[in-house]
Amino acid sequence: MYTLYIANKNYSSWSLRPWVLMRELDIPFEEELVPFAPGTSSSWSAFRAFSPTGKVPCLRDADTTVWDSLAIAEYLAERHPDVWPADPVARAWARSTTAEMHSGFPALRTVCTMNCGIRVRIDAPDEALRKDIARLGELWNEGLTRFGGPFLAGATFGAVDAFYAPVAFRIQSYGLSLDADSMAYAQRLLERPAMRDWYAAALAETWRDPDHEDEARRVGTWLQDLRTA
Amino acid sequence: MYTLYIANKNYSSWSLRPWVLMRELDIPFEEELVPFAPGTSSSWSAFRAFSPTGKVPCLRDADTTVWDSLAIAEYLAERHPDVWPADPVARAWARSTTAEMHSGFPALRTVCTMNCGIRVRIDAPDEALRKDIARLGELWNEGLTRFGGPFLAGATFGAVDAFYAPVAFRIQSYGLSLDADSMAYAQRLLERPAMRDWYAAALAETWRDPDHEDEARRVGTWLQDLRTA
Ligand SMILES: N[C@@H](CCC(=O)N[C@@H](CS)C(=O)NCC(=O)O)C(=O)O
Ligand SMILES: N[C@@H](CCC(=O)N[C@@H](CS)C(=O)NCC(=O)O)C(=O)O
Repeated sequence: MYTLYIANKNYSSWSLRPWVLMRELDIPFEEELVPFAPGTSSSWSAFRAFSPTGKVPCLRDADTTVWDSLAIAEYLAERHPDVWPADPVARAWARSTTAEMHSGFPALRTVCTMNCGIRVRIDAPDEALRKDIARLGELWNEGLTRFGGPFLAGATFGAVDAFYAPVAFRIQSYGLSLDADSMAYAQRLLERPAMRDWYAAALAETWRDPDHEDEARRVGTWLQDLRTA
Repeated sequence: MYTLYIANKNYSSWSLRPWVLMRELDIPFEEELVPFAPGTSSSWSAFRAFSPTGKVPCLRDADTTVWDSLAIAEYLAERHPDVWPADPVARAWARSTTAEMHSGFPALRTVCTMNCGIRVRIDAPDEALRKDIARLGELWNEGLTRFGGPFLAGATFGAVDAFYAPVAFRIQSYGLSLDADSMAYAQRLLERPAMRDWYAAALAETWRDPDHEDEARRVGTWLQDLRTA
């Protein structure tokens, strides 16, 4: 049985990727949620107990530790179908698109930090954020058109969708707007059963991390907090 | 025949990764070097002609474009041996370590930008840089001990070594010091035939990009410029 270490569902965008992938592909695992250490700039010492980088996510499979979301995807791809598309052209595209998210989209990731439960309106995205959003729309449309949808690289949900799943929460939290086809794709992501479960659990969390909260409030007009706990 | 698009050998750390991998594994390719547009903050418009992200490296294989260094490594791994170790445990470790570089080591990457031809002494690395260097030493020692060396994940040079190859140039350019085993490994990287060829070509380049040069001079005590052209 796999163990997947993650942090707070409300905040941890990297944790969401392998979690939603494994849930959507019906790969059984035990979840170990270790919340961020609030009021410290790093959770390194808490996470070091199980993760060599002091970061989450981290997958344990018997004696093997896999400590990065993309490495986890490749590890699972060797053991389970549908992580990547079967067609080599779609697979090359899916891998490029996934790796682009893994080290790209800096404005989207730092300005619109994931915070599932809140609503903040960004009235005037700066140039860097506009550029990331434009690239996102271009990439999503390319995938949906080339491979026929409804997912990014074809008919089934896979790693490439899992890596863009946090973006769907960001669009929702910050009221970002993209073209109609991209918005419909983001909505499809939000409606996946695993995404709904993650979202419900995020709303029910009681932890509040001041840094994550301030970051999110700072970028636009505060609208509301939907968290119930 | 593959075409690999890269930028200046003196500066482009991402380009070096697939280049040195393909050369060390004897995978034939045509090199297309497109220099950075000096004096502009981005080469996006120049690189967009061949790369969907406006970034290098980018691999073309007939009709297929693969646009990120890690996606290129996985693409090659499906077609050529020795990109990843054959042993599944070593392979999981190599993939985690490679992915960690792909989105990690922020201080090492931004403070010590790759500039093969210069020598700058960093007298007092700040805390973030010290932390990255400590993690680097830990990771390299773990790999060399667990898999027996002389390369990070065992007996042959592979993608994980290619992803840390730019670090060997950084150690050399900025006089970074690590433990003896890590320094010896960095030296082994610098002595690979492909690394020597890249370095010689970097020294012979005539382009000077003011941004890249300023960045490098700013971080320490200027010592020398070994470029010959
Ligand atoms: N490249 C890593 C990134 C992991 C990452 O940055 N995780 C964040 C949480 S979303 C973390 O653990 N931060 C804790 C800290 O830096 O103290 C991956 O893909 O797994
Ligand atoms: N994640 C990408 C990063 C590529 C990247 O940032 N490349 C730099 C050159 S080393 C670039 O093309 N910069 C041009 C620009 O941003 O204008 C990869 O692994 O290939």
